[in-house]
Amino acid sequence: MSLEIPEVVINRLPVYARALTELQLRGESVVSSQALGELLDVTPAQIRKDLSYFGRFGKQGRGYNVNSLLSKLREILGIDRQWRLILVGVGRLGQAIAEYGGFGPQGFEIVAAFDANPALVGRTIGGAPVLEIDELERFLKTTRVDIGIVAVPAGDAQPVVDKLVAAGIRAILNYAPITAHVPRDVTIRHIDPVLAMQSMTFYIKRAEPGAK
Amino acid sequence: MSLEIPEVVINRLPVYARALTELQLRGESVVSSQALGELLDVTPAQIRKDLSYFGRFGKQGRGYNVNSLLSKLREILGIDRQWRLILVGVGRLGQAIAEYGGFGPQGFEIVAAFDANPALVGRTIGGAPVLEIDELERFLKTTRVDIGIVAVPAGDAQPVVDKLVAAGIRAILNYAPITAHVPRDVTIRHIDPVLAMQSMTFYIKRAEPGAK
Repeated sequence: MSLEIPEVVINRLPVYARALTELQLRGESVVSSQALGELLDVTPAQIRKDLSYFGRFGKQGRGYNVNSLLSKLREILGIDRQWRLILVGVGRLGQAIAEYGGFGPQGFEIVAAFDANPALVGRTIGGAPVLEIDELERFLKTTRVDIGIVAVPAGDAQPVVDKLVAAGIRAILNYAPITAHVPRDVTIRHIDPVLAMQSMTFYIKRAEPGAK
Repeated sequence: MSLEIPEVVINRLPVYARALTELQLRGESVVSSQALGELLDVTPAQIRKDLSYFGRFGKQGRGYNVNSLLSKLREILGIDRQWRLILVGVGRLGQAIAEYGGFGPQGFEIVAAFDANPALVGRTIGGAPVLEIDELERFLKTTRVDIGIVAVPAGDAQPVVDKLVAAGIRAILNYAPITAHVPRDVTIRHIDPVLAMQSMTFYIKRAEPGAK
């Protein structure tokens, strides 16, 4: 497997896997890049190019075998595994994340949450215990954690990210509204609905009567 | 303004605007593409290229004027305006979105929420009234709404998106775990933490001892 697979390609693979899971549930055994592209609003050429990084799938003009492509993608992405998460920040946003029902069925389990607020420490949220933030480093020394979710206020986010990285976490899902910095060997994804909306308002403005 | 600005460029502009706002708050008046790139983990060349779509900013070797670049970006993105949102789906996720404190200060106001659950209808959530889902079309006929937020279960999401589009909504923020389809003149953004994590687990797997 080549080391130079572009990140945008990796980011599209889970979308392909989700669509193939849907097709599998519907009992479909073969899908063309054309049909998959229409499902996902991606060009067939893009799909063929993305998948070509991982070997040869399907035959020209015959489409992809849904089951075998899906199981290969699941293996590449580690979708079949159980992944262990911690959540840092149990304010309004953190509580919503902890109680969101969509992680568990996909193999993502929040094993512990951390907060500085003594009123929250000792509670259980979404099935996970809320621990004192000062316990974070000790916890990570003794417990395997794959992904750290950051849901603290903007001003606290970079120090929390730094702590997670120093403790060996290599994947961070950041909900705080900042561009957090991580070393090259750490992967970070930002979830930021405000930025998403600000990119859409560009298009709304442009479509207005009288817009340039 | 050219019509062919790539969407990835538009998506980066709000990040630039946020960083410039931060620099402005710190009292900085000039920033180089190098320094801005370091703040954002983007190459200086990328920043110069992205901004070149919108005219000439800054002078070679002199850096960008923070105030004027920021005000131009705010104008391009419509950041100075008030935008009116509706929220469809007031389950656990929808409630968290409605109560999230980060939208209002950025000019995004949820003016109404919609749900099919009679137990929720009539309540107020995050300052917005919860209306019966069947009221959606009538509401949109009489009220200006810029962005529709979709927070319904996966199986209900596409029909809701279709209704929003039919009623004239041109920007959709979709939290449901599906790739929803919209016509070309409608912009959609997906917020999906599971997909984000599945793209990170690729890197975790690859870094493991014994990985190919």
